[in-house]
Amino acid sequence: MNDRPRIAIVTAADEGWPPGLDPLHEQADLTLANDEKSLRKALSGADILMVTDFRTDLLEDCWPQQHRIRWIHATSAGVDALMIPPIRDSEIPVTNARGIFDRPIAEFVLGLILCFAKDFPGSLRHQAEREWVHRETERVEGKRALVVGAGSIGRQIGRLLSAAGLSVTAMGRSAREDDPDFGQVHAAEQLHALLPDADYVVVAAPLTPDTEGLFDATAFSLMQPTARFINIGRGPIVRTDDLVAALDNGEIAGAGLDVFEQEPLPANHPLWTMQNAILSAHMAGDVIGWKEALSEQFVANFKRWQAGEPLQNLVDKERGYAAR
Amino acid sequence: MNDRPRIAIVTAADEGWPPGLDPLHEQADLTLANDEKSLRKALSGADILMVTDFRTDLLEDCWPQQHRIRWIHATSAGVDALMIPPIRDSEIPVTNARGIFDRPIAEFVLGLILCFAKDFPGSLRHQAEREWVHRETERVEGKRALVVGAGSIGRQIGRLLSAAGLSVTAMGRSAREDDPDFGQVHAAEQLHALLPDADYVVVAAPLTPDTEGLFDATAFSLMQPTARFINIGRGPIVRTDDLVAALDNGEIAGAGLDVFEQEPLPANHPLWTMQNAILSAHMAGDVIGWKEALSEQFVANFKRWQAGEPLQNLVDKERGYAAR
Repeated sequence: MNDRPRIAIVTAADEGWPPGLDPLHEQADLTLANDEKSLRKALSGADILMVTDFRTDLLEDCWPQQHRIRWIHATSAGVDALMIPPIRDSEIPVTNARGIFDRPIAEFVLGLILCFAKDFPGSLRHQAEREWVHRETERVEGKRALVVGAGSIGRQIGRLLSAAGLSVTAMGRSAREDDPDFGQVHAAEQLHALLPDADYVVVAAPLTPDTEGLFDATAFSLMQPTARFINIGRGPIVRTDDLVAALDNGEIAGAGLDVFEQEPLPANHPLWTMQNAILSAHMAGDVIGWKEALSEQFVANFKRWQAGEPLQNLVDKERGYAAR
Repeated sequence: MNDRPRIAIVTAADEGWPPGLDPLHEQADLTLANDEKSLRKALSGADILMVTDFRTDLLEDCWPQQHRIRWIHATSAGVDALMIPPIRDSEIPVTNARGIFDRPIAEFVLGLILCFAKDFPGSLRHQAEREWVHRETERVEGKRALVVGAGSIGRQIGRLLSAAGLSVTAMGRSAREDDPDFGQVHAAEQLHALLPDADYVVVAAPLTPDTEGLFDATAFSLMQPTARFINIGRGPIVRTDDLVAALDNGEIAGAGLDVFEQEPLPANHPLWTMQNAILSAHMAGDVIGWKEALSEQFVANFKRWQAGEPLQNLVDKERGYAAR
């Protein structure tokens, strides 16, 4: 029954084949679905979906009445785009790329923190003006970071920031006392109580109904005026208009943003010109070799699937993320 | 004899009193020497010099035939400006600010490394153009850093870069096998053999006759074209023209420079406009509170001096740095 299963590779519009899928060709038939037409065709015949387009909104439109899909793998950490009713409410297992992005994203977050503390953006501005301007900088040692999201990415962020001398507090969906990395993890209900104590607030949470809009005007008003907000999770966890206002009013001191409610961020968006914001193009986890690593992870899971073994990195569809 | 000793505070031109010296006023007479006239006057009567101007070249011009100077303290890590013949060849003990700058500079170096690896300067350039440009970034985990200079600053850099996952090699004046932080420290003669293996070369050495011009065209030609050069030590350790050529020719991939042969860096210098260089104004160690910390360290040493106890952070004038 698993002989030559059909795998549809669902990519963003007009994207080509991901690298590193060669090992699959002996055991499966692969098709590339990178527009509406090819997606409709692929969905009706596929056994397996490998979804590299983590922003897809075509999937819901194209989802067929009849299908034989038995497994969906996302080559992303966030699976929010896949939590559409026909998938969420089905028996189809969903797996994700848990692990691949952890360390690169943690490094990116530490880099953003050091950019703020050492004012590298200011140095680059002075450099462009050929100005020698000595300033006092900030220590990061002893600064307090609140990591929102205690999954594998948040965990790695916590480990790296601790290693760099920051004092790390974690917030997860629910409280626990004996976390191997964080010790104590605070419950989501504690967010507003935790925000006033943080020098850096780092969002590493999945986008779920619980986290959507979590960072709004109230949340920013509770942060210190010297605090920085970093989002490498998902854009809609933040009310962007509220963030812009908080940056404008000096309610917070800065923001490092790799993800946005709308991606690409529109050219006329006020965030682009804010001097206390450091923006990047949803790339925090994408280190050289990332696509190969994602394919390798999928191929390894495919081998398990073919052997009838349990899949790794299964997403808990009630919660909206993979909790191993 | 030590009753109300006279302390001259030697600062850069027109600078005011450093903060945090209040505790001295009960036990000593303090004068501020911040131009040639006040310096000449202060030198002839002072028992102690506290030199905050680490670039001073007035000291040699103004050094008196007759004086009663019995101790010179530099509020900097580098004491190169004090190694003029009448001081170097005298019995006057020289102490420095060993320790104060270690951790701030280590953080600054890690920040520069992450700026290069994650291309934050590129993100800021795209941000200024309102361009959404996804790029692949680099890991820092597993990258190889060569720290040139195994004093207290180099040591702290090594510790922090190791904590951040880099693989660190150290070069000091002489080789040793059992260094508490580095394990092995390579001898200065090994520099050219070590350069080809480094992804990041970090200069944390003092400026001495041995290190002046150490990084010249030959040194840069031995580095990898993907490697970055970071200097938080002293400008004259580098032949700046050779560095500019190496950056221009792609012999190395980038440079993070906090110190320069000429400071302030002249406005017409080619380094300002190099996109693969990140420049700052000799400020890597100057975190908020640094001046107070420097004064506190001097006051503590002054109490030892008055009590007839050994001074801390004595500079080995033969070597040109404090080797505790």
